[in-house]
Amino acid sequence: MKLIMAVVQDQDSNRLLKALTEHNFRVTKLASTGGFLKSGNTTFIIGTEDIRVQKALDIIKTNCQSRQQLVAPVSPIGGNTDSYVPYPLEIEVGGATVFVLPVEQFHQF
Amino acid sequence: MKLIMAVVQDQDSNRLLKALTEHNFRVTKLASTGGFLKSGNTTFIIGTEDIRVQKALDIIKTNCQSRQQLVAPVSPIGGNTDSYVPYPLEIEVGGATVFVLPVEQFHQF
Amino acid sequence: MKLIMAVVQDQDSNRLLKALTEHNFRVTKLASTGGFLKSGNTTFIIGTEDIRVQKALDIIKTNCQSRQQLVAPVSPIGGNTDSYVPYPLEIEVGGATVFVLPVEQFHQF
Ligand code: NI
Ligand code: NI
Ligand code: NI
Repeated sequence: MKLIMAVVQDQDSNRLLKALTEHNFRVTKLASTGGFLKSGNTTFIIGTEDIRVQKALDIIKTNCQSRQQLVAPVSPIGGNTDSYVPYPLEIEVGGATVFVLPVEQFHQF
Repeated sequence: MKLIMAVVQDQDSNRLLKALTEHNFRVTKLASTGGFLKSGNTTFIIGTEDIRVQKALDIIKTNCQSRQQLVAPVSPIGGNTDSYVPYPLEIEVGGATVFVLPVEQFHQF
Repeated sequence: MKLIMAVVQDQDSNRLLKALTEHNFRVTKLASTGGFLKSGNTTFIIGTEDIRVQKALDIIKTNCQSRQQLVAPVSPIGGNTDSYVPYPLEIEVGGATVFVLPVEQFHQF
């Protein structure tokens, strides 16, 4: 038995929860703020048998991996064009920080 | 030293906190959502000496164990009697998912 | 690799986050309530290499250690002077409860 603790961005949170649930993982979400990643994080607590740890890690990687995203330029409001960038910007989104912890006992009551 | 992480239903949360505190366990509650159990969960973090782990587990089991509960029938509103069940329903409530984790160091500052 | 879980008082939370970040620790904050300390707690999750565990503990101790604080007397409102204490009161604030947990795998995606 292992406990996987995964901190992911809020925007990937629902997709990750759906994917883990579809593969019958037991998941709890904790609200978290700031930290490992840009603000707006969710911490997942996943309890799983040793043999399925790699599958859970694969699902987290698939759904949360850090990647580049194009952001459309926003038109300046009120004529302040000093900082206006007239072409799409590439920003980094997503990412996950994952700990696999040993479990001495696991119970369901 | 062990760290017990217990995910329980919100409705059992106050009773569990009271019982653990009465038995001098050190407890922290984390807000959690969805997951192992039906939505509305609380995650308890309990730090305890090895010798008292079983006592903590007993208290969690006593206060949170999954059980059947009778729910009184709700009268239909607006005359829609199609799905009306005129006798009490038995539903499952409670339940706890519990991890006991090894602790390498414990400090109080 | 270790996972440090630290429960500290809200009033020390921002200072601790700043100090840990300045020393390049990866930190996630979880909202927590009641428990080990007086109500209003924050739980920090800190992932770190074994060699830097002591440094993290030093930073937590420096920023959160339990200490005495003088509280100025509050003038009674509405003439009820029965419980009025006309000199500063010394109360205990701060404090931290810290677990260091072993980590079997650590990943960043
Ligand atoms: Ni699949
Ligand atoms: Ni008792
Ligand atoms: Ni320093």
